Amino acid sequence: MDQSETKMQIAVDAMGGDYAPGAVIEGLTRALYDFPDCDFTLVGNTAKLGLYLHKYGIADHPNLKLHHAESVVEMSEPSAISLRAKKDSSITECARLMKSGSVEALVSPGHTGALVAATKVLNRTLPGIDRPALAASLPHRHGRFILIDAGANPDCRPGNLIQFALMGEIYAKYMLNTANPRIGLLSVGGEDGKGSSLTKPVFKALSDMPINFVGNVESNSAYEGACDVLIADGFSGNVLLKTSEGLAKMATSWLKKAIKRNALRVLGAMFSQGAFKELKSTFDADEVGGAPLLGINGVCIIGHGSSNPKAVRNAIRAARDAIRFRMNERISQRLQECKATVADLESMF
Amino acid sequence: MDQSETKMQIAVDAMGGDYAPGAVIEGLTRALYDFPDCDFTLVGNTAKLGLYLHKYGIADHPNLKLHHAESVVEMSEPSAISLRAKKDSSITECARLMKSGSVEALVSPGHTGALVAATKVLNRTLPGIDRPALAASLPHRHGRFILIDAGANPDCRPGNLIQFALMGEIYAKYMLNTANPRIGLLSVGGEDGKGSSLTKPVFKALSDMPINFVGNVESNSAYEGACDVLIADGFSGNVLLKTSEGLAKMATSWLKKAIKRNALRVLGAMFSQGAFKELKSTFDADEVGGAPLLGINGVCIIGHGSSNPKAVRNAIRAARDAIRFRMNERISQRLQECKATVADLESMF
Repeated sequence: MDQSETKMQIAVDAMGGDYAPGAVIEGLTRALYDFPDCDFTLVGNTAKLGLYLHKYGIADHPNLKLHHAESVVEMSEPSAISLRAKKDSSITECARLMKSGSVEALVSPGHTGALVAATKVLNRTLPGIDRPALAASLPHRHGRFILIDAGANPDCRPGNLIQFALMGEIYAKYMLNTANPRIGLLSVGGEDGKGSSLTKPVFKALSDMPINFVGNVESNSAYEGACDVLIADGFSGNVLLKTSEGLAKMATSWLKKAIKRNALRVLGAMFSQGAFKELKSTFDADEVGGAPLLGINGVCIIGHGSSNPKAVRNAIRAARDAIRFRMNERISQRLQECKATVADLESMF
Repeated sequence: MDQSETKMQIAVDAMGGDYAPGAVIEGLTRALYDFPDCDFTLVGNTAKLGLYLHKYGIADHPNLKLHHAESVVEMSEPSAISLRAKKDSSITECARLMKSGSVEALVSPGHTGALVAATKVLNRTLPGIDRPALAASLPHRHGRFILIDAGANPDCRPGNLIQFALMGEIYAKYMLNTANPRIGLLSVGGEDGKGSSLTKPVFKALSDMPINFVGNVESNSAYEGACDVLIADGFSGNVLLKTSEGLAKMATSWLKKAIKRNALRVLGAMFSQGAFKELKSTFDADEVGGAPLLGINGVCIIGHGSSNPKAVRNAIRAARDAIRFRMNERISQRLQECKATVADLESMF
């Protein structure tokens, strides 16, 4: 078998994130070493990238190509700019490469909104999916759970959340290696009747679907391990994600301050530092690297804006895993299986 | 001056919360000792309360009266039950005592939804307020911030959030002792254009109001101290609150487990335990005791369902503070000042 034919093709947005292009290229260097079964297309302003490629010794790497993109979508710019004023941005070029079939996946630690806009328009959604959703992996007491949507859709209709449930189920099967993932609905109050005008009809619909639906789940129960997949609209899902990040950071800083107040505490903390390192790795977003934007026709992995090289390398790993697992094929198949039920349920809204 | 005339009158729901009536009565005992300037009416099934009153030696306390309530609203029951099948519940009786003017404040570590329903119907909202909102106090890097609404209204219109901003401003002035509280709007993305169909019009409206509006604030930035008051709909506000509670609990449990894995770590943790205690007290919801339901015609303090005696005592302190500060008078005055602007803004929606 000719190896080059079977290689996975992945585009990497060199200009995405707060530490671009340095952190992206350093992460890509690690990925080139770790994943020889992938070909990479680095997308960005080629005039600016050369220096970094030489620095990391990958300028002539056989598995690396360059693709020029003139502009960059800044974090403060509106999402639609990737399709209007900055049609030549690195994000838009990545989506275009995936549209043409040059790559199967794209990885960007960039502007979530711009990535959603560009891939929705250029790559389209899978049949049966109206809106793509971001699937984040978070720790709970005994393992991890998948939060979907973690921030792609600030406004959702009930039908969107039903589709998120089916996509989340498939993604959890391979991410968490669980045969029959427990699906929970993010709500206020764990009881069946609790919720908002958005979640109440979704609760009814999910109860009627051929999935392992465990009912309403509050975010504190999700941290206790109440479900494998937590379904949410992108606004409250994003609040959950960012509250977790913010609090974890804050608690660490408070503890450090409290420890420094006294020498015995400093000594004690030195003895027990292994425990702190274990805790830190539980929360380490860099381990996961990036969240897939599920429902796009193609693989799109979105990294944190503050991605470091490790996070970039692991986001690339996530793209590779999604290709190998044939994630979209499986999602499409599951949607097809549930098509009749979903159509029935959606007609209710 | 006759002291009895000036005493503050507070109703306490003996049947609310997971550890009722024991924890409530123990907390009340402490409050009777600490706050001799208050008269208390303990509301619950009097036949069941006697034993506890004797146990804590307060059966004949001059500042304590009993008021009978036949039933209890269980946490799993729907909110409206306090007004329908359980019109004789301790929650409904507390609201009735406040309606008749027998008490100025009520304290309950009970069912938030049932308390909102009962007080809305029996006590009504302040003029200019359509919906009451729960104001929770949370820690940030340098102090605390007020989250409003923390869970009373799962569904909100833009006009509700404008009213929450004015109530939160007044509450923060005395809770945080800040002359000109910084008001932030909970959103996804800190930039001006980011948000949902609910938050975008609120952003515009708050920008036009005579308040210290600092724009969109993400929950991680709130933990960094980006604002003194964080405005949210009750659904995402509740997600923020419960994510914080869940994560703080989970992080503690993970750390304990990691420490126990090795004897040196256990020794180290013993040396540095003062630091852990400091961190724990930062997060200690019992210190605050209860969150006021702002906008009700009367003072209503809602405690956590798992309130212990310390939390009950501090929830009573919060009720006493709200009376002494003349919170509702100040909120009404502020609403009156901003009446023209708010009416203008609300007409936009």
